[in-house]
Amino acid sequence: MERPWLIDIDAIGIDGDDTLWHSERHFSVTEERFAELLAPWAPAEDLAARLLHTERSNLAVFGYGVKAFVISMIETAIEVTGGDLPVGAIEEIIGWGKELHTHPTVVLPGVVDALSSAAGRRLILVTKGDLFHQESKVAASGLADRFEAIEIVSEKDPATYAAVLKRHGVAPERFVMIGNSVRSDVLPLVELGGRAVHVPHEVTWGHEMSDAAPDDAAWWRVPSLGAALG
Amino acid sequence: MERPWLIDIDAIGIDGDDTLWHSERHFSVTEERFAELLAPWAPAEDLAARLLHTERSNLAVFGYGVKAFVISMIETAIEVTGGDLPVGAIEEIIGWGKELHTHPTVVLPGVVDALSSAAGRRLILVTKGDLFHQESKVAASGLADRFEAIEIVSEKDPATYAAVLKRHGVAPERFVMIGNSVRSDVLPLVELGGRAVHVPHEVTWGHEMSDAAPDDAAWWRVPSLGAALG
Repeated sequence: MERPWLIDIDAIGIDGDDTLWHSERHFSVTEERFAELLAPWAPAEDLAARLLHTERSNLAVFGYGVKAFVISMIETAIEVTGGDLPVGAIEEIIGWGKELHTHPTVVLPGVVDALSSAAGRRLILVTKGDLFHQESKVAASGLADRFEAIEIVSEKDPATYAAVLKRHGVAPERFVMIGNSVRSDVLPLVELGGRAVHVPHEVTWGHEMSDAAPDDAAWWRVPSLGAALG
Repeated sequence: MERPWLIDIDAIGIDGDDTLWHSERHFSVTEERFAELLAPWAPAEDLAARLLHTERSNLAVFGYGVKAFVISMIETAIEVTGGDLPVGAIEEIIGWGKELHTHPTVVLPGVVDALSSAAGRRLILVTKGDLFHQESKVAASGLADRFEAIEIVSEKDPATYAAVLKRHGVAPERFVMIGNSVRSDVLPLVELGGRAVHVPHEVTWGHEMSDAAPDDAAWWRVPSLGAALG
């Protein structure tokens, strides 16, 4: 298999959530519970749309992560029930947040072998979200030693990637980013003149969805991290 | 004024919240509102103790910051009212969280002059808390350019400081940390064999309180950042 994204590359960036370890499926399970809890007040589909709307408006205030998700669920629940929400339901939602923060970190199949095949290369973990929670997941994954550096960022936009690349002395055209989100792991790199590989995951958060198609000169789509790293 | 903490120093670490800009007073105002809101159910003093207890047990799960504070307030409110809490009160608490996250960042008096007097030295901002919120505050403070590096950490313990010092190639005995928390800005450095200067702030969060006294060989207490930097 030819891998044009690895030619003349000085460093490889790899995403964390749903690229190295499971994340979104825990959120999905929580959203299902949330739909059950509020079934007397709202059909699941409406609820999902309202929750995503609340999450998006809260992004600019609270950023990403479980705690912001918990607050958005509580707000949506109050809104949907018109103030008719039993207090026990709020306790339940907070309990889910604690579970999400303390879940065991489950490394995705094939990841360890894929990282081993790339040993000797400069690997940088670039993961987005809550600092405290991401650090816990990095530690629990047992993968920290595979990386030259761990970069936990609050947003994955071109400016953030540019700062990370500068800090590590890597030119954008000598860098490839690998991850499961076209929006966060692919498009910002393409904008910077870098390369990217999209490794889709079974579940994708609505906010990270994108219809963009690979262009074979700047970014590619492969089925697994193993296929990306060779 | 003699400043033994600046002799043979390669880099100076400076804390953010309540050393460079106001933080705790915003939390104090929120706690006062919280006490008013729950006055029908609990006296202010009991409430403060229960909130601190909840915050401390949530630290290990959620880490520091406004979002964790909001969740702790909601939990405490539910607990104190025995489930008798009006839903509107929860909306109010979430609203305070949004205010706390979007407050203008107010730089403390004398800080700009103090930093100017230290221009030419290697200054590293070491601040603890929520990544997204701390980044916003650093940007809003207008002080980012004064620092060689900005380190946002999830906890200020000896291991974290050791990692920061290693990353910047500074030996602990050639480093001094300046900040308003004895617990977070002073004692971890002393443990590492470094030096520290305590600049007390008008308000200190219960969790950061300490009775430790300066020892004149490893750490000192001065009234302002200006007095610390000369």
